[in-house]
Amino acid sequence: MVQASDPAATGSADLDALIRDRVDTMVAARLDELLALREAEKAKKPKKLAIIATKGTLDWAYPPLILATTGASLGWETGIFFTFYGLNILRKDRKLEVGTTGNPAMPMPIPMPQLLTALPGMTPMATAMMKRQFKQHGVASIDELIELAVELGVKLQPCGMTMDVFGFSEGEFIDGVDPVCGAASFLTWAADADIALYT
Amino acid sequence: MVQASDPAATGSADLDALIRDRVDTMVAARLDELLALREAEKAKKPKKLAIIATKGTLDWAYPPLILATTGASLGWETGIFFTFYGLNILRKDRKLEVGTTGNPAMPMPIPMPQLLTALPGMTPMATAMMKRQFKQHGVASIDELIELAVELGVKLQPCGMTMDVFGFSEGEFIDGVDPVCGAASFLTWAADADIALYT
Amino acid sequence: MVQASDPAATGSADLDALIRDRVDTMVAARLDELLALREAEKAKKPKKLAIIATKGTLDWAYPPLILATTGASLGWETGIFFTFYGLNILRKDRKLEVGTTGNPAMPMPIPMPQLLTALPGMTPMATAMMKRQFKQHGVASIDELIELAVELGVKLQPCGMTMDVFGFSEGEFIDGVDPVCGAASFLTWAADADIALYT
Repeated sequence: MVQASDPAATGSADLDALIRDRVDTMVAARLDELLALREAEKAKKPKKLAIIATKGTLDWAYPPLILATTGASLGWETGIFFTFYGLNILRKDRKLEVGTTGNPAMPMPIPMPQLLTALPGMTPMATAMMKRQFKQHGVASIDELIELAVELGVKLQPCGMTMDVFGFSEGEFIDGVDPVCGAASFLTWAADADIALYT
Repeated sequence: MVQASDPAATGSADLDALIRDRVDTMVAARLDELLALREAEKAKKPKKLAIIATKGTLDWAYPPLILATTGASLGWETGIFFTFYGLNILRKDRKLEVGTTGNPAMPMPIPMPQLLTALPGMTPMATAMMKRQFKQHGVASIDELIELAVELGVKLQPCGMTMDVFGFSEGEFIDGVDPVCGAASFLTWAADADIALYT
Repeated sequence: MVQASDPAATGSADLDALIRDRVDTMVAARLDELLALREAEKAKKPKKLAIIATKGTLDWAYPPLILATTGASLGWETGIFFTFYGLNILRKDRKLEVGTTGNPAMPMPIPMPQLLTALPGMTPMATAMMKRQFKQHGVASIDELIELAVELGVKLQPCGMTMDVFGFSEGEFIDGVDPVCGAASFLTWAADADIALYT
């Protein structure tokens, strides 16, 4: 260390002040630059959408598939974890139907009490009606949406535990499905998602 | 580059050590400062709550509206995307009912098998009962909650695609509703939400 | 400020260039080091999982409990907000049943129209069947899952407002439940969750 009494010290102190000044300015500028760079890199990273599909009726199969294909179309990294009744959506021979009872918000052709919605014929009728309505308005069918999801690279993850319980086997599923996995691996995958939805 | 054998090199090495020292101190301090500043800015930014409302029964209309008005009351930026049966909530002449069948967890006045819950009269009875229960306990009605949501500036976004499919028109909706939008614009809006919920 | 015409200026310009060079190198290195440190600290912080449980049937009691116990097993900070019919899950004398009607995706022992699923006896039969299926495949029962949740430190938060409306009292709940709270305190707690799910 130079001493204050040293004649050379004045020059050194001047130099020190000069350096301090320059360093201060440059550090701040360079730091701002580097942090902005990091943020720009982070902004370039695609968003991530993680969906859990638990329902297996025709109507409730639409939301996870529409959200997932929309996310993937936006360039987002997207995945669906199929569990419980949602596994039905992955079946090659899926035959999804609308649940008419228990949902008075379901638009029926004519108003009717809940009991009538439970009559034989009501489920296939409502199912046919919904399929027709979606088709008439140019909305893709479930078959088309799942094909699109595979095409767009949506990760389709079947829940191993509920496959066992409900008696599903991998052979029943469409092509393009991810290896069977569990809730732990899904949660770990979804932990850094921008949006996670349980449908 | 100065050479080690150069007499000026000692001065250069000293300078280097001095700069290193200054840089270390200043970068650490400046970084803490800048990051603290950034965090303070982020903390000042209100939280954001994005909700998807898909159900159109009386009972399931409550959760998105209660969560949204609660979020907005906390000063959070809040929005609801109404899709599928959830569009019913936005109707001026909404007439939401409770689904009694298919939900054995629904507290009925007296225990009864599922079949009886489907009898004519059960849906209006359960609906009236639920409205009475909520009112007795000082909980706002759906009408009041939606008014409150508009007042608090909750973004109410109707899903154009399901409006088409289910035959809803903008004219049927209450005042204060956002322009009709799609899943892509909702997802983009929700991407930086702190909490996103599909109800 | 030194002037360009000043003979000392050349030395100052050299010094300036030298400092700039050193600062550039050192700031970048030190910044990477400090940011990596911060990220390592953040990565050490456990993930957080916030779940809302709104359903009270046997089948829909599984997902929030399986997800919560899985999250907690991964070392995540985990909490469930029990509201609406979901409060049934917290009851000591809980008697959860499967809703058979309105869910044509529910695998029934034999295919049947919706009306038959509403017949007396169908709900207990489907309930017994589901319990047996889960047990046969080594999945914990709801009783075991909720015990495990308490053991793993999952926060079990009952919604005060719906307790009032549906007539639940704290005394009816199992041990280990958090104090009664509201949507505002849940949202505030969940605001920094990595994953928030409404089930």
